[in-house]
Amino acid sequence: MQAKVNALVHNQWFERFIISVIVLSGILIGIETSRSLSQGQLHWIETIHAIILGIFVIEVILKLYACAPDVKKYFKDGWNVFDFSIVVVALIPFTGQFAVIGRLLRLLRVARLISVLPELRLIVTTLIKTIPSMFHVVVLMLVLFYIYAVAGFNLFHESNPQYWGDLGTSMLTLFRIVTLESWTQIMYIDLAVHDWAWIFYVSFIVIGTFIIINLFIALVLNNLDEVKEQKKALERTQNTEAHILNNIVLIRKQLQEIEKDMHQKQ
Amino acid sequence: MQAKVNALVHNQWFERFIISVIVLSGILIGIETSRSLSQGQLHWIETIHAIILGIFVIEVILKLYACAPDVKKYFKDGWNVFDFSIVVVALIPFTGQFAVIGRLLRLLRVARLISVLPELRLIVTTLIKTIPSMFHVVVLMLVLFYIYAVAGFNLFHESNPQYWGDLGTSMLTLFRIVTLESWTQIMYIDLAVHDWAWIFYVSFIVIGTFIIINLFIALVLNNLDEVKEQKKALERTQNTEAHILNNIVLIRKQLQEIEKDMHQKQ
Amino acid sequence: MQAKVNALVHNQWFERFIISVIVLSGILIGIETSRSLSQGQLHWIETIHAIILGIFVIEVILKLYACAPDVKKYFKDGWNVFDFSIVVVALIPFTGQFAVIGRLLRLLRVARLISVLPELRLIVTTLIKTIPSMFHVVVLMLVLFYIYAVAGFNLFHESNPQYWGDLGTSMLTLFRIVTLESWTQIMYIDLAVHDWAWIFYVSFIVIGTFIIINLFIALVLNNLDEVKEQKKALERTQNTEAHILNNIVLIRKQLQEIEKDMHQKQ
Amino acid sequence: MQAKVNALVHNQWFERFIISVIVLSGILIGIETSRSLSQGQLHWIETIHAIILGIFVIEVILKLYACAPDVKKYFKDGWNVFDFSIVVVALIPFTGQFAVIGRLLRLLRVARLISVLPELRLIVTTLIKTIPSMFHVVVLMLVLFYIYAVAGFNLFHESNPQYWGDLGTSMLTLFRIVTLESWTQIMYIDLAVHDWAWIFYVSFIVIGTFIIINLFIALVLNNLDEVKEQKKALERTQNTEAHILNNIVLIRKQLQEIEKDMHQKQ
Repeated sequence: MQAKVNALVHNQWFERFIISVIVLSGILIGIETSRSLSQGQLHWIETIHAIILGIFVIEVILKLYACAPDVKKYFKDGWNVFDFSIVVVALIPFTGQFAVIGRLLRLLRVARLISVLPELRLIVTTLIKTIPSMFHVVVLMLVLFYIYAVAGFNLFHESNPQYWGDLGTSMLTLFRIVTLESWTQIMYIDLAVHDWAWIFYVSFIVIGTFIIINLFIALVLNNLDEVKEQKKALERTQNTEAHILNNIVLIRKQLQEIEKDMHQKQ
Repeated sequence: MQAKVNALVHNQWFERFIISVIVLSGILIGIETSRSLSQGQLHWIETIHAIILGIFVIEVILKLYACAPDVKKYFKDGWNVFDFSIVVVALIPFTGQFAVIGRLLRLLRVARLISVLPELRLIVTTLIKTIPSMFHVVVLMLVLFYIYAVAGFNLFHESNPQYWGDLGTSMLTLFRIVTLESWTQIMYIDLAVHDWAWIFYVSFIVIGTFIIINLFIALVLNNLDEVKEQKKALERTQNTEAHILNNIVLIRKQLQEIEKDMHQKQ
Repeated sequence: MQAKVNALVHNQWFERFIISVIVLSGILIGIETSRSLSQGQLHWIETIHAIILGIFVIEVILKLYACAPDVKKYFKDGWNVFDFSIVVVALIPFTGQFAVIGRLLRLLRVARLISVLPELRLIVTTLIKTIPSMFHVVVLMLVLFYIYAVAGFNLFHESNPQYWGDLGTSMLTLFRIVTLESWTQIMYIDLAVHDWAWIFYVSFIVIGTFIIINLFIALVLNNLDEVKEQKKALERTQNTEAHILNNIVLIRKQLQEIEKDMHQKQ
Repeated sequence: MQAKVNALVHNQWFERFIISVIVLSGILIGIETSRSLSQGQLHWIETIHAIILGIFVIEVILKLYACAPDVKKYFKDGWNVFDFSIVVVALIPFTGQFAVIGRLLRLLRVARLISVLPELRLIVTTLIKTIPSMFHVVVLMLVLFYIYAVAGFNLFHESNPQYWGDLGTSMLTLFRIVTLESWTQIMYIDLAVHDWAWIFYVSFIVIGTFIIINLFIALVLNNLDEVKEQKKALERTQNTEAHILNNIVLIRKQLQEIEKDMHQKQ
């Protein structure tokens, strides 16, 4: 029984069916954004959503059963945890003022497309793997943001409260400046009051973009390294395989010779 | 006869003539944008356009004849298909309200410059070859856009209908945000209503640019790989050639020695 | 005594304590930006700041004592100089109109997080090391900025005094243009007066971004080189170690054989 | 005499003197932008400019004399041609309405800093060397710009004459769009009239940035290649030198042995 479920769960057609259900779910969510829907149509969509959720619940149960009794095995794969959480969260009823949250969480079902398609899963896994190599640069960036945010607050919160009114607003303003988005607009307000305001802005942009560029370079080098190691690992495997094959061939030859000898002796 | 046509079609001067005709076509299209043209001058330009189209039709017929009877050979080259389509489309008469479409399609003749100049053809072919390696990242990007577009619609379509009014507008707004173009202008509208709106915008920018940067890195690594393999292939060819040459030299020497021996024996 | 201090200063728990004090200092500085603080609360914060400063002074004295009598050794490490300067500057009393400067300098204590955390220290050291390789490109950039600033002043200071009024303003305007921030807004003012103004702007953007891209490439190549050399150095060390190990093993074997021989002779 | 001039021209102190004169010239040009200068001060500056020009003329004459009678040798170096042109142009009197042109050309003397400082000269030479590798991508970009400019004119010149009024304006608008500078501002004008206008803008941005990114990658790979070849060339030189050295050592040993033999025979 369990073996059958396991076979079903890893069956290509089962996977394709789940992908179709996810895509259908996404299309429905898209249709819901249309304003020209009547109440009756919305009722239909809700019914289909309930069916889709049912299918997802069954899928999770089947996958859990396939791993039983070792349920830990299922949860060892981060993507299974991702799928499980989405289904569990979808079962919580959000009504009244929380209805919007329910609708947003339903949107996460579209993200299941990533966990179902192996190629997307690989890309996202790779992206997530590069995060640790960025960790310390991000900490450095945060220190820079914090220092400039407090400094910006102290220097400009009186003359320019819209952008430097409190610490949170200052952080957001700095993020905006580092994306180079209309940063002069903010600067000219302060420049009208303080002659030296440009030093604050120009220094932040130069240091900030410099760190971002180095973060970018670190990512490139990290990727280059990984690609090289993958190649080396591949070559090593191929070499090992070739070695094993050679030995097998040699053994077979020796066996043939032994056979010959035995025939000759007969 | 066919051999002659084949020779003509691949003749350097024939190619240069076609390039000149394309450039002339482009110049005429440029002149047409001038407002100071009288009706009479426009008539002249139309006549020249008709002649140019005639030349293109003859070119296609000659190239087809050069490949006859194996016409498939002509259509195997994507660039020939490109040229053929432009000529066929140009023969359809667009009048009345479709006149603008006709004028835009005529513009594609300038794009024939790419199919005629080998260097441009190589660059575009290379660019097109890199598209498959980007395919899955583009799908991932689309999933991200779709999730944020529906979320943006649900969260902001009431307070900010200009940018989040429907799904299409939301997608366009997200594209604008990912190019970092005046994204704060949109955010401040929502920030006035929802305190937490910055999370939506900042998270989208961080994730979006992160994916784009990784797309970019993938392109660089892909290119590096291709260049390396081309070099290896080149070296292998050169080695093989050197090997063959060496062997030929050795054979010649052996022959000379055999000859000598024969002379000595005589 | 000195040895004990040295051990204390390099103790893991001592370092963690200092990190905690720095983080606390940063949090306090952040709290100070809140407007809802009463006078009494501000008094408390000032007291804690004084205690923190005391801890920093003791830390510096301990570290100096650990190096005594060779105090130069302490100042040889740039990060120690950085820590020392921050503490010395913090001891200067800034009152009256200089109070803001005092508060900004206090902010530098957060930057001590970089000197205390080895990972951040490494990143910043690497960033600073890449500066010399950028030096000449920066000089070239300055020459470009200077030429375009004076040219911009001469051409546009009458029609567009807001952006090209004097040399300093022109430099700032050029920095803005090179970040591609609303540069057309400035151009359209001049374009209304001079038909050819676009040449100035477009040429500056093309040349400026071209130099920046090459600066960026130089940084990447520089980094790649450094990484490769680090790897080679590592391999060399490993090879040397393997060599030494091999020899030791061989010597041990020879000794064993000598021992055997001696036993046999007995 | 000529040898002395040649030595003088390549003397370190002569070069430093010329650098100082150029820097002085640049400072004067900067001072001239100040509005608070009286007529008398301007007179002094003009006098110093005349002296500087005299020094440059003498420098060119000396360098020409140093190469005489083979004057072609002087003009073979592009940087000499650059210096020569600046001096010749400076001798042309620009008066009346051409005074501004004269002042701009005087600005080129600051650019002589590049031709005098070897490090800057190297960077600029490298930059110029990368231009040919970009040539075909630039042609491709021009074809793209031309097609989109004419298309933009045909589609939008009625509804949006400010940005698509004629071919030149359209090209400038496209350059602006490719720098991602407030491109939505232009799009929203057309989007109000044509529902499909976003296709034009989004497609242009996607294709345009894609080509630019590939241009960038080509530059990186080109640089990587050059660096590698430089290294290989260096290694080859070193190998050759080592080889020569080895041979010299061997020859010396053989000579010694021959000497020994001769002594023994005696």
